[in-house]
Amino acid sequence: MIYLTRRERFNAAHKLYNESWSAEKNAEVFGKCANTNWHGHNYELFVTVKGEINETTGFLVDLKELSDILKVKVVEPLDHKNINLDVPFMKGKMASTEILAIEIWKQIQPEIEALGCILHSIKINETENNSVEYFG
Amino acid sequence: MIYLTRRERFNAAHKLYNESWSAEKNAEVFGKCANTNWHGHNYELFVTVKGEINETTGFLVDLKELSDILKVKVVEPLDHKNINLDVPFMKGKMASTEILAIEIWKQIQPEIEALGCILHSIKINETENNSVEYFG
Amino acid sequence: MIYLTRRERFNAAHKLYNESWSAEKNAEVFGKCANTNWHGHNYELFVTVKGEINETTGFLVDLKELSDILKVKVVEPLDHKNINLDVPFMKGKMASTEILAIEIWKQIQPEIEALGCILHSIKINETENNSVEYFG
Amino acid sequence: MIYLTRRERFNAAHKLYNESWSAEKNAEVFGKCANTNWHGHNYELFVTVKGEINETTGFLVDLKELSDILKVKVVEPLDHKNINLDVPFMKGKMASTEILAIEIWKQIQPEIEALGCILHSIKINETENNSVEYFG
Amino acid sequence: MIYLTRRERFNAAHKLYNESWSAEKNAEVFGKCANTNWHGHNYELFVTVKGEINETTGFLVDLKELSDILKVKVVEPLDHKNINLDVPFMKGKMASTEILAIEIWKQIQPEIEALGCILHSIKINETENNSVEYFG
Amino acid sequence: MIYLTRRERFNAAHKLYNESWSAEKNAEVFGKCANTNWHGHNYELFVTVKGEINETTGFLVDLKELSDILKVKVVEPLDHKNINLDVPFMKGKMASTEILAIEIWKQIQPEIEALGCILHSIKINETENNSVEYFG
Repeated sequence: MIYLTRRERFNAAHKLYNESWSAEKNAEVFGKCANTNWHGHNYELFVTVKGEINETTGFLVDLKELSDILKVKVVEPLDHKNINLDVPFMKGKMASTEILAIEIWKQIQPEIEALGCILHSIKINETENNSVEYFG
Repeated sequence: MIYLTRRERFNAAHKLYNESWSAEKNAEVFGKCANTNWHGHNYELFVTVKGEINETTGFLVDLKELSDILKVKVVEPLDHKNINLDVPFMKGKMASTEILAIEIWKQIQPEIEALGCILHSIKINETENNSVEYFG
Repeated sequence: MIYLTRRERFNAAHKLYNESWSAEKNAEVFGKCANTNWHGHNYELFVTVKGEINETTGFLVDLKELSDILKVKVVEPLDHKNINLDVPFMKGKMASTEILAIEIWKQIQPEIEALGCILHSIKINETENNSVEYFG
Repeated sequence: MIYLTRRERFNAAHKLYNESWSAEKNAEVFGKCANTNWHGHNYELFVTVKGEINETTGFLVDLKELSDILKVKVVEPLDHKNINLDVPFMKGKMASTEILAIEIWKQIQPEIEALGCILHSIKINETENNSVEYFG
Repeated sequence: MIYLTRRERFNAAHKLYNESWSAEKNAEVFGKCANTNWHGHNYELFVTVKGEINETTGFLVDLKELSDILKVKVVEPLDHKNINLDVPFMKGKMASTEILAIEIWKQIQPEIEALGCILHSIKINETENNSVEYFG
Repeated sequence: MIYLTRRERFNAAHKLYNESWSAEKNAEVFGKCANTNWHGHNYELFVTVKGEINETTGFLVDLKELSDILKVKVVEPLDHKNINLDVPFMKGKMASTEILAIEIWKQIQPEIEALGCILHSIKINETENNSVEYFG
C-alpha cells in the first residue's frame, strides 16, 4: 500500500454567516469572518490517495488523470469564485473549511475510485496557521 | 545605511472591474478576476525601511512601533475586508495589486518618516506566483 | 470526524544537558547542543484536534478559543524564554523536542477537552530538518 | 511512543521509461516524463521513526546517528546521480517516486532498527505539488 | 514606476562539464556536478518587469500575456528536458545557473518589451540554498 | 555582471540588552527580547556576491569555496552559540540583527574579494516576519 498526494490551489471569497441568525449574533460568533462584503483566501488543497502500485508503470495512479479530476471537480468550481454564492456543491451550507473539506470529498470520491485507488484524505490549508483534514 | 523588512498578512476579497466598461469588456480584459461575486487572497505585505542604526539600541527602528503602524494603517483596514467596497483608501480605484502597493505607500510614508527612518519599498505577494514591488 | 490544526510559534533558548553527568560526557553525547551558554530556535508548534462539526457554525471548534488556550498555556510560557530555566512545566526535565512535545500535551489536554473536542497530536518543528510528533 | 522526522535532500536525474515497451508507448503513457535525455528534481526525503524516549538523553534516537544512516544509505547513492543508471538499489526498476520510496525503506530499515527504534514512514516530495508516502 | 514579478517552474537535468577538458579536470573543478550520467533540479524562475501602470486596468502588464511568453520561450524548452542536450538556446554553452539566467534574458527581452514594459531581472533558484540573479 | 546568493543557517541564543542601562530600562526598551536568561532563533543568512562570469567554468565563483568561507567565518562561530557571550566578533556589541549583519560583512568581505568577486549584500532572516539587509 502506497500513498500519493497531489496539491492544487484555488483563490476564493467567502464569509462565515448563519442565515438563520441576526447580523449581531453572526458578528458575535464569527467576528471579522462574518464581514458582510466578504473576504478571501489562497486555499491549498492536498488530496491523498492510496492503493497498490501498477508494476508496468511504477505508478499508484496517473498523476495527470488525478489532477484532471481535481481541476474539473474542485478547482474550476472554486477558483476565483465566491464559495457562498457561486459553488453548486456548497449552496445552503456553511462556508467553513471543515464543511468545504467534507463536500470536496463527496465530489471526488466516485471519480477517484474509478481510477482504481482509494481516497485517503482531503487536507485544506486556509492560511499558514489554520488547516483542516478529513478522512471520510 | 541598513535595511529592515517587516512582514504582515491580510486576507481580503476583491475583483478587477472597471466600472466604466460593460460586463463583457471586463470579462474579456480581466477574465476570471472579474467574477461578479468576488474572489480573494491571503496577501503577504513586506515593508522595507532604511536608515542609520541607533547606537544605544542596535536598532534601525523599534520593530514594535513599525508593526503597530502597519497594523493600524494597513492590516486593520484590509484584513477580512472587501478591497473594492470596504477600504477607504481604495475607494474609486482599481483593486489591482499594483494600485494597492502604491496606496499602502501613501498611507504609511508619513508615519514611517516620523519614526526617523526612510520608507524604501512595499512588496505584496498576491499568490505564490505573482508579486508587486513599489519604491515610491 | 474532522481534524483541525492550528500553528503557533515561539522563539526560545535551550541546551541539551544532563545535570547528573560531567561536562565531558554531556559534550560527548549532545555535541554542540550542550554548549554551556545556550543556543536557540524558532520553534513551530502544530496542534491538531479532532471531533464532530457543530452544525450551526460549521466549526469543529472556535479557532480563537483554541488559539487563546495555546497562547496562555504554551506560547506565553515559552516565547522569548529559556526552556531549561524559565518554563515551569519543563523544570527538571531534559529540554529536548521530544520531552517538550509531551509536556505541551499535558499542559493543554484538559483545556482542549473542555472545548468539546479531542486532542489528536502535537507536532514541533525545531529546524527545517528536524521535527517531533506526539499522539498521547 | 514518540515520532521523530528527519529531512534530507538530494538532486537527481531520472526518466519514466518501461524498457519492454516501444518509445511510442512510453511517450503515450509517461508523456514528458519519458524524455529520452532525462530530466531531474530536487527531491526532499522525510524519514519518520518512532519508539520510546531514552530518559537520560530525552531523545528517541540520536539525530546525528539517524542522519548518518540516511547520508550513507540514501543521499550519497542518489545525490547528483541518475536514478535509472547510477543507483545500485534502483537497477532494473521503474524510477517512479512510489518505487523509490519503497526501495529507500528497504535500504534503511535494518539500520534504523539497529538504533533501537521503529521505521514508521518514508515521505518523498518530488515537486511542490507531488509527493508519496510509504509505511512499510 | 512599479515592479511586477512572475514565478514559473521547470524540472530539468544537466551537468557541469567543459568539453575541452579531460574527465579528470572536470571532476576536479565541478565535483559531483560533473557526474557523467547527469543530475537534475526543480528550478524556480522569477521574472521581474517594470514600467508605468495602465490607468484603465490598474495593471503594469497583463499577467496572462507575461506568463504565456514565459511558457513558450522558457518553460516549454526547459521543462522535463536536458539543459545540455535538448535546449536550443543552451547548445554549446556551460549549463550553469549563471549562464542559464543570461540566456533566458536574451530569449524573453524582445517579447517583454513588446508588452510595453521593461525587463528588470531574471532570478533562478537552483536549490533552496543557491540562486542567481541577472539585471541585463 | 551577475549576482549569486548562497544561503546558510545557524541556530543561536541572544538577548537585547544595553549593559549601561538598568534592568528596568532594558525591559522598557527591548520588552521580552531583554529576557535575562536569553532566547534564540533559527537564523537564515543570505550572502550575495557579484562579478563577471568565468568563461571556462560558467561560474561567477565556485560555490563550494564561497560556502567554505561562510562556514569558517560565520556558521562555526555562531551556530549553537550565544551571540552575546560566545562570538568573538560580537563581543561588546548589541546583539541585534542589524549589528550582526554589519559584523558578518566585516568578517567575510576580505575573503570574498580574494575569490575575485564583490560582496554585494548580507541578508539575515531572524524570524519569518523580520529580516535585515546590509549593502556595505
